[in-house]
Amino acid sequence: MTLHTVNAQKATSEDSNEETTPLDLIKEQGLEKSQVMEIAGWMTDVYGPRLTGSSMLDKATEWAVSELKKMGLSNVHLEEWGPFGRGWDLTHFEMHAEAPNYFPVLAYPKAWSPPVKGEGEVIYIDASTQEELDAYKGKLGGKFVMVDTIRDVEEWFEPSAKRYESDDLLGMANAGSPTPRPRRGRRAGGFNFNTEMWKLIEAEKPIAVIDRSYKGDLGTVFVSGARASEGRSQNVDNDIVPQATLSVEHYNRIFRMLNKGIPVRLSIDLQSNYTNPDQMEHNIIAEIPGTDLKDEVVIFGAHFDSWHTGTGATDNAAGSSVMMEVARILMETIKESGVQPRRTLRIALWTGEEQGLFGSRNYVGKHYAEFPPNSYTPQSLKEDQKTVSAYYNLDNGTGKIRGIYTQGNEDVVPIFRKWFTELPDLETGTITLGNTGGTDHLAFDAVGIPGFQFIQDPMSYFAKTHHSNMDNLDHLSGEDLSQAATIIATFVWNTSQMDTMLPRKPLDEDLKSGTN
Amino acid sequence: MTLHTVNAQKATSEDSNEETTPLDLIKEQGLEKSQVMEIAGWMTDVYGPRLTGSSMLDKATEWAVSELKKMGLSNVHLEEWGPFGRGWDLTHFEMHAEAPNYFPVLAYPKAWSPPVKGEGEVIYIDASTQEELDAYKGKLGGKFVMVDTIRDVEEWFEPSAKRYESDDLLGMANAGSPTPRPRRGRRAGGFNFNTEMWKLIEAEKPIAVIDRSYKGDLGTVFVSGARASEGRSQNVDNDIVPQATLSVEHYNRIFRMLNKGIPVRLSIDLQSNYTNPDQMEHNIIAEIPGTDLKDEVVIFGAHFDSWHTGTGATDNAAGSSVMMEVARILMETIKESGVQPRRTLRIALWTGEEQGLFGSRNYVGKHYAEFPPNSYTPQSLKEDQKTVSAYYNLDNGTGKIRGIYTQGNEDVVPIFRKWFTELPDLETGTITLGNTGGTDHLAFDAVGIPGFQFIQDPMSYFAKTHHSNMDNLDHLSGEDLSQAATIIATFVWNTSQMDTMLPRKPLDEDLKSGTN
Repeated sequence: MTLHTVNAQKATSEDSNEETTPLDLIKEQGLEKSQVMEIAGWMTDVYGPRLTGSSMLDKATEWAVSELKKMGLSNVHLEEWGPFGRGWDLTHFEMHAEAPNYFPVLAYPKAWSPPVKGEGEVIYIDASTQEELDAYKGKLGGKFVMVDTIRDVEEWFEPSAKRYESDDLLGMANAGSPTPRPRRGRRAGGFNFNTEMWKLIEAEKPIAVIDRSYKGDLGTVFVSGARASEGRSQNVDNDIVPQATLSVEHYNRIFRMLNKGIPVRLSIDLQSNYTNPDQMEHNIIAEIPGTDLKDEVVIFGAHFDSWHTGTGATDNAAGSSVMMEVARILMETIKESGVQPRRTLRIALWTGEEQGLFGSRNYVGKHYAEFPPNSYTPQSLKEDQKTVSAYYNLDNGTGKIRGIYTQGNEDVVPIFRKWFTELPDLETGTITLGNTGGTDHLAFDAVGIPGFQFIQDPMSYFAKTHHSNMDNLDHLSGEDLSQAATIIATFVWNTSQMDTMLPRKPLDEDLKSGTN
Repeated sequence: MTLHTVNAQKATSEDSNEETTPLDLIKEQGLEKSQVMEIAGWMTDVYGPRLTGSSMLDKATEWAVSELKKMGLSNVHLEEWGPFGRGWDLTHFEMHAEAPNYFPVLAYPKAWSPPVKGEGEVIYIDASTQEELDAYKGKLGGKFVMVDTIRDVEEWFEPSAKRYESDDLLGMANAGSPTPRPRRGRRAGGFNFNTEMWKLIEAEKPIAVIDRSYKGDLGTVFVSGARASEGRSQNVDNDIVPQATLSVEHYNRIFRMLNKGIPVRLSIDLQSNYTNPDQMEHNIIAEIPGTDLKDEVVIFGAHFDSWHTGTGATDNAAGSSVMMEVARILMETIKESGVQPRRTLRIALWTGEEQGLFGSRNYVGKHYAEFPPNSYTPQSLKEDQKTVSAYYNLDNGTGKIRGIYTQGNEDVVPIFRKWFTELPDLETGTITLGNTGGTDHLAFDAVGIPGFQFIQDPMSYFAKTHHSNMDNLDHLSGEDLSQAATIIATFVWNTSQMDTMLPRKPLDEDLKSGTN
């Protein structure tokens, strides 16, 4: 069945006698029989945060593999990548203010912080020159070190959650093709206060360093990984100083007491283990085999890993659950319609995204391009690069799909336009030539494979949940995620059934010659 | 100096040669030399939450007395009331999910919870009849008991903070005099599920009862006192079950895991002490002596106590700091102008407000009315009831004053209207005949003394800070509080300098005859 056949068979109304097409079945499965919140419930509530390298991620991976097998997918397997470095499991954390008055401190350890237990005074490094910094030598040991000044908290006179308005979408619709940004070189050396401050801190061995992150308030705390020694990373550095991020209100309170000359004492009990001795990580891969064009693939994926203080719900159980739901929708559609996909459909759940798109980049490096050592800038392309029609990604939270970023691929616009217009009830359809970044479609786009991230309603993503302690299932919207799964299943199916692969952007000259 | 003189002397512009009046000085002190945030900083950051009966409140009280003395007030003293019951100091709290996976639980103990340390499974009482309840007999010991169902979390598509719009204020301006509500009798007996459930819980001695409060999300947790045995109160009951309130996201997560049949284990370490052996509490009272009408008083007050999980910033360091600032403004104004108040000006910082306006009601019971045992419905009035011109209260958070509730006192309207129009730049002036409740002016209003609470911009008060863990200094607005202090100082001064006392509402017939 070709795309044209599908379109001709589109059901027009319930009382029509026309045959039910795969696209109708996709809509029915996606919108009326959705399982996306059930999938997300297990992924978040039960398996919790899925920090790359952690044993929580291993358990969640095992569960996802089992679910994909239950759905009937083929070739369900893990593809190893690495070495990533050490894993990190948090097994206990508490922080308290012990003096001048007791209060439990709302705080979270930064990932990869080593275990520490202790009590001590708090000191703020009030310095901006090397000389001022030197005055703290010998004074930080056995203390909690504050490195941030106070941050003013503004009340929310504007909503923290939003959906895109027409104005926002029109701006994207009208955007031109992006111009490539020049690659930035490493900044030249010279005195860097922050580097020098951290050298001092590492030498002094304080109990812990505390900060208050650049956003978050009212109990929402944004936390990611601990700072490692200069030039190393969290998951290989053996000398990480224990680090924790406090709610801004508690950080500010402590800071203000110090400013009044009142000594503040904190206590901490952080228990963590370094795990994962073989240092290797895994992407989860499964397939629905194609037929006449089975050597060509359509990949749909999302990163499965998360940060550690919430349960990685909007970032990115949302995307991972949607992709697992897309796999389920497609399997059910194939079963019910008897229509087989022409190309092979492949789901990929990546890990290591939060530390630098490592899972997807390693996958691309294994199958589609040669990377030089310690780089993800492709030197040359592998043969299979030609076999991927498209990679579809979802990683902007729980908001419904309002359109798609084409990353400057002008030739796909009329194709996507047609597909969107066949989904008239789903409040979607904005196609922008603009780029979006920060997630795994970049790994494919970088090697000339059409890679797309969808435009999603922002909801509370950047304001409240993305990398925060409150990234929990309660902030997922089942209605939005069902819509997203329906649209992505439709796109994957349509991509599979075309006579040709999706058009590609012209390759960089460097890369073209590299393939020769 | 009478009110008329004051008005005649009002400065009209900076280049005017007219004499600077006390009202000009009040504005200068209140708006340009404000100390209100400095006062609030000590009250919240340093002295922390001020739960009635706690040693934190004692320290804060000592500080406030010392500050009022430093300002030069007279007759600074504590007035004892009680017996209130036991005090409660929290010295340590932590809660963790230990299985199926570790996470630190964002939770707070309810005030007056006894100490407890333990680990156990969580059980939800899924019952609504006595028979269903009976099925849990013998099953709650050594467990954490959930008593609430799940609560759905909605994203904030509307702002959580707001100021009053013209529409809101117009509704208040146009409100008629309130009609008295009939006093509700005690509900007739019969089967009450909640009562029976709690009897069972108390008999079974679980590790703790956990709930998720009726509002709050994203790390904001609303917490007040523990439930005591039927008919007793938190601060006298010796059999309180340890109780904690969880962030809704964590509560829901645990609930959903149980619904999936997955056992969840929690651990708790709650350390608390019962303090205050003499069971007595104290209001803080200080005065600025009057002159020709010194036997009449103008009282301005706010409750000084708070709940225990934040630092009682908007509830009610805001009001208490404003009233201390009013005292400071008035002292400075008197010093600079040489004009003395005609009536005695009295500041009152109440305690026990959160448990039932106890401090103010006991004060009224001591000085102004006779209450029957165990009641705050006055039987008769004392002689001094006639000497109080007005009681002004502030207890609706950090928002600036937009007007005043007159509690149906129609005769004060033209007087307040005049005072407000003399403050043209302060975005205030709505006078409503409507009532407002829930705070200490009611204690005075109940015995026929004009008692007023101001209309304040809501800001984040009910949505985020009132009785929450996030009621911290960061949610106070210095600009708003300065405006409030300026207006209240003006009202107090004007009330002091009138030839007559403020008009009163007609007394209840009962009470009138009681005074005979």
